[in-house]
Amino acid sequence: MKTFMNDSFLLESASAERLYEAVKDLPIIDYHCHLDAAQIYENKKFNDLTEAWLNADHYKWRAMRNMGVEERLITGDASNYDKFVAWATVMPYLAGNPLYHFSHLELKKYLGISEPLTPRLAGKIWNKAAKRLSSLGARDIMRMARVETVITTNDPAEDLKYHKLLAGDGFEIRVLPGFRPDKALNIDKPGYPEYIVSLSKAAGFEIDSLDALKAALIERLDFFVSYGAVASDHGLDYVPAGSTSGMSAEAAFEAAIKGKPLSPQDADNFKFELMVFLGREYHARDMVMEIHFGCVRNPNTRAFGALGADSGFDSVRSDTRADNLFTLLDRLSATGTLPKTILFSLNPADNDFLVSLSGAFNDNAGIKGRVQQGSAWWFNDHLDGIERQISAYAAGAPIASFVGMLTDSRSILSYARHDYFRRILCNYLGTLAERGLYPASCFGYLEEIARDIAYDNVKNYFRL
Amino acid sequence: MKTFMNDSFLLESASAERLYEAVKDLPIIDYHCHLDAAQIYENKKFNDLTEAWLNADHYKWRAMRNMGVEERLITGDASNYDKFVAWATVMPYLAGNPLYHFSHLELKKYLGISEPLTPRLAGKIWNKAAKRLSSLGARDIMRMARVETVITTNDPAEDLKYHKLLAGDGFEIRVLPGFRPDKALNIDKPGYPEYIVSLSKAAGFEIDSLDALKAALIERLDFFVSYGAVASDHGLDYVPAGSTSGMSAEAAFEAAIKGKPLSPQDADNFKFELMVFLGREYHARDMVMEIHFGCVRNPNTRAFGALGADSGFDSVRSDTRADNLFTLLDRLSATGTLPKTILFSLNPADNDFLVSLSGAFNDNAGIKGRVQQGSAWWFNDHLDGIERQISAYAAGAPIASFVGMLTDSRSILSYARHDYFRRILCNYLGTLAERGLYPASCFGYLEEIARDIAYDNVKNYFRL
Amino acid sequence: MKTFMNDSFLLESASAERLYEAVKDLPIIDYHCHLDAAQIYENKKFNDLTEAWLNADHYKWRAMRNMGVEERLITGDASNYDKFVAWATVMPYLAGNPLYHFSHLELKKYLGISEPLTPRLAGKIWNKAAKRLSSLGARDIMRMARVETVITTNDPAEDLKYHKLLAGDGFEIRVLPGFRPDKALNIDKPGYPEYIVSLSKAAGFEIDSLDALKAALIERLDFFVSYGAVASDHGLDYVPAGSTSGMSAEAAFEAAIKGKPLSPQDADNFKFELMVFLGREYHARDMVMEIHFGCVRNPNTRAFGALGADSGFDSVRSDTRADNLFTLLDRLSATGTLPKTILFSLNPADNDFLVSLSGAFNDNAGIKGRVQQGSAWWFNDHLDGIERQISAYAAGAPIASFVGMLTDSRSILSYARHDYFRRILCNYLGTLAERGLYPASCFGYLEEIARDIAYDNVKNYFRL
Repeated sequence: MKTFMNDSFLLESASAERLYEAVKDLPIIDYHCHLDAAQIYENKKFNDLTEAWLNADHYKWRAMRNMGVEERLITGDASNYDKFVAWATVMPYLAGNPLYHFSHLELKKYLGISEPLTPRLAGKIWNKAAKRLSSLGARDIMRMARVETVITTNDPAEDLKYHKLLAGDGFEIRVLPGFRPDKALNIDKPGYPEYIVSLSKAAGFEIDSLDALKAALIERLDFFVSYGAVASDHGLDYVPAGSTSGMSAEAAFEAAIKGKPLSPQDADNFKFELMVFLGREYHARDMVMEIHFGCVRNPNTRAFGALGADSGFDSVRSDTRADNLFTLLDRLSATGTLPKTILFSLNPADNDFLVSLSGAFNDNAGIKGRVQQGSAWWFNDHLDGIERQISAYAAGAPIASFVGMLTDSRSILSYARHDYFRRILCNYLGTLAERGLYPASCFGYLEEIARDIAYDNVKNYFRL
Repeated sequence: MKTFMNDSFLLESASAERLYEAVKDLPIIDYHCHLDAAQIYENKKFNDLTEAWLNADHYKWRAMRNMGVEERLITGDASNYDKFVAWATVMPYLAGNPLYHFSHLELKKYLGISEPLTPRLAGKIWNKAAKRLSSLGARDIMRMARVETVITTNDPAEDLKYHKLLAGDGFEIRVLPGFRPDKALNIDKPGYPEYIVSLSKAAGFEIDSLDALKAALIERLDFFVSYGAVASDHGLDYVPAGSTSGMSAEAAFEAAIKGKPLSPQDADNFKFELMVFLGREYHARDMVMEIHFGCVRNPNTRAFGALGADSGFDSVRSDTRADNLFTLLDRLSATGTLPKTILFSLNPADNDFLVSLSGAFNDNAGIKGRVQQGSAWWFNDHLDGIERQISAYAAGAPIASFVGMLTDSRSILSYARHDYFRRILCNYLGTLAERGLYPASCFGYLEEIARDIAYDNVKNYFRL
Repeated sequence: MKTFMNDSFLLESASAERLYEAVKDLPIIDYHCHLDAAQIYENKKFNDLTEAWLNADHYKWRAMRNMGVEERLITGDASNYDKFVAWATVMPYLAGNPLYHFSHLELKKYLGISEPLTPRLAGKIWNKAAKRLSSLGARDIMRMARVETVITTNDPAEDLKYHKLLAGDGFEIRVLPGFRPDKALNIDKPGYPEYIVSLSKAAGFEIDSLDALKAALIERLDFFVSYGAVASDHGLDYVPAGSTSGMSAEAAFEAAIKGKPLSPQDADNFKFELMVFLGREYHARDMVMEIHFGCVRNPNTRAFGALGADSGFDSVRSDTRADNLFTLLDRLSATGTLPKTILFSLNPADNDFLVSLSGAFNDNAGIKGRVQQGSAWWFNDHLDGIERQISAYAAGAPIASFVGMLTDSRSILSYARHDYFRRILCNYLGTLAERGLYPASCFGYLEEIARDIAYDNVKNYFRL
């Protein structure tokens, strides 16, 4: 029996271990996350593991609810310690779950704690962690993790104040803004007119037409670029189809800002056209377009009313309407304005499809993996999910073009997931050599592929 | 080479074997099956293996047809022995198929026969089995299998006569009715008006409106509860969507009982509303709601005409419309009336989706795994299918909340499948420990998880 | 570490090796490919590896584009040697990709080259291959591969001149035509009226109605049958649904040949009816009907304009509308005219579904695997894809009924894929024995199953 989470954790052969040696100390470029730049700037410290782990991590909340823990001990008014004990009580039941690995990797890497968290050890680990956390700021953790660059997720209306402060204060790790205009696209969500007002303010002019909206987005995009933005991101429930039926994008926008109701097709027409518009603008700036789709947000009305968004009640969508990507990408490709694009579906049944679709749009020479499937996302970010995404990519395209891992995380401790990913990647590649599926005489290429996916590709692809 | 189906069958490590020791003798609670209570009451005996295996098992018929066996030897007028020989001739070609394992497990566990069934041994095994079967009634087999409770599948119009007799005659194994109102929902199937008449008789009043139908279902539900019912079950081809277009549920029902035609949307409106209604009633009685969906029944008109339903001609459905579950569960959740719910899709492409969707509705504290994905169902009830369902569940939620296996079977011998499942479960969990993915120091928790899934969870969840 | 691609390549146990011994020298019946009969008749030779590998293989083009190779070195005016070097430069990055294995298998089997292709060895391998190729004609390669029969893919309008010449000149390998009437079905594609004119010429009479089209197709079908045709093939983007809305098939055809526009539903009505018609005709001639579906062809308008079809820009489709197969097969089954049918979806999420659907139509005794899922197709033709298809088939039906591998290839060298498949098949079956999932005492049956799938089944199923 292999020791739990020892040095060869997830590395199941000598080849895997050797490959891991080649990548384990490479810097991290986390090209998409939800960290708060203010917390980095202020070198935010956590007082205890509940602050670090439980106050914002809705993955853990979800697991606790599933085990029947009462809400008071999750998001309620229980003490931090009681919440931690509740979590410690759930932990041992997470066999085969990524939270079990992520939590223990974080304890080990950043807090020097190697014992498995159990109810019995909860108190001891709580104290040990608190002592260690008192000397660890956000920046310290980023340094420990060898972070080189991190790209946050920002609304176009943001002023990027903390990105500016970070750029100016000599912090050696780059913190760049990521352009995520979801609120500008979500014409069918409550509060849209109010959002457009705040975007007007940021842009400095009134937005009363689709043309004005586009101008405002360009203004903000250029503002972001002036802060070093190289990436955009879109979070779509499903891939919208543009259609000649329903309202035009112009008409839909004008109706929406007046608070008038839209049909789903009206909203999709608008979203589709805005995606095409933005894709072109990203291309013009050599930015990467990330598209995340295939989820259902807040389907549980009661829980949403009680706890709001991002509380652990989202889901994979069954029908992701992923075929609509053909039309979207073709509209951009036809005019030579398809940007580098990374596609993420929350439904892993789309894996093979996305690798294949990507291949149909890789017609512009000179860019490795120009359109590609992104790393296993959100609910898929676990051992099996990562392995399946890697093997689907490798079977359908040269795996060497893959830009690899991102955390997509709200937690500063989650850089441990890059290590998790690198181990799985090296195990995948090492297994090929072990099984005689790749020649030992070419092992140097395997090392190069591992390094490319762990670091070099993302650096080149995002021009970092 | 490992010996076929020896004690460590499916257990591929010492950890797996150790976990299996902890669960192998636990009682069986079979929370959903299609056994006939009359056969249990009468301690039904089989004269030979054709009676036991081939007279009703359409899984085996299907395999035989696939190998080109003529229908005469399957459901036709051939002798029992000739049918058995035809089956024995097919068996060796079922490498990698669950029927190969289920059949041999049943031979070994209940009939003391360890040799693999081949045409050469058909005669010998036929005789040996006949001798053994002559002394084995249904109740004896249930005792051998350590069955504690079994929940059958019953139409609301049934009188549950044999459940009453069983409860009264001192049989130590509980046989409880399961409430399956499919016929009341299937407003678009031939014979609906006639069914409503028989339901009227059972309820004791005329059913001439949707309100009357609801009242009748409540009457029958309470009748079932008085016989110890704790579970309901729904078999849906796909998940229906309620809609404001088409007929209302009331109008659709009134049209249907007059034999008037309905559009698919009319029928779905009715089904959706009745599912919401029933969900609330299950919740009020703390009953479990099981939903099985994603199949196409009787698509082969010719075979259906010749052999009728349940003859081995059903199929997985590609488009399961599983996203409609969001609306259904939310309607119940919004009013605080979502019962404990177990979701089964016949299409394994829904696996990850269902685990995720379940998590979005686990907001009521205190119930472990309140909404959850059920065990690999029907065509998925095989080694790979079970492993995939377990690992998807574990990756997306604490596997410790899973209520585990059911047979869904018409055959008294199929309890062997619980052993099959337990072995796969223990192998899955043991492999985690062996690979260093779970700490050896917490092995006691793995044993607890294995016991929970094998027995304790289902006992608590169903209040048995 | 296992040596790359040695004799036990992909064979991971002694049982696997033993099974492989039983099948490795069996002849090949390649029941569906895209070879050009003229090239076989003329015993076409390749001057170099670029002619053999790169001038037509859009799989390789796609991989090269993904790695950022410029189009000039792929389909452009670069020299053959420069193109080969560009390919050699990409090869090492294809870890885990089937092209890596297929290319090296071809080098080894037909050109006697065992070294892995790298940029460093490109020149040496180029020269060695050129020398060997100079003495290897198409017929020589087919003999080396032990090909017994090959079925090409031919349009109904073809005159089959080279099939006739081949049949007459004493070549010991049978080259039979395959009937692929895609152009007759694709009523919605540009050039349809022109195609109908050419079909008229082949049939010898004017085609001005659906009845005339049917008569022409029958005439051509019988012509193909007179050349030994036993198989048809259909390449559908998705499975069409016939509908009572939209134009009738007759009306749609008459509109199409006049160049009038059709709605998607009009076109689908026509396609559906023609599939039913053709299915009956195949059945009447005891021919096999192959249906390939689930792709999106030429979604990249720009690339299609620049490079045309079959240039490496096709894709898996997400929504394959596979449930429409129920109606199609039932229409045929209901009249007792469902031919032997092999179903291929390009989306592997359909795997379990297709095995299951097939089972629902296997009601005519006497034909083993009458309706069945075909081997992993196109983008799925790789190690994982093949394993998944085999294990899905085995779990859902007797694997012994499977007709096994086809190349679906344009390349004479691709017979190596049959060896690839046989190794994976034997490894799958051998692993069952090794793991105690199949008894060692029945090993002879495993050998029989392996031989059936490798050779005997396809011979019997196609009456060859």
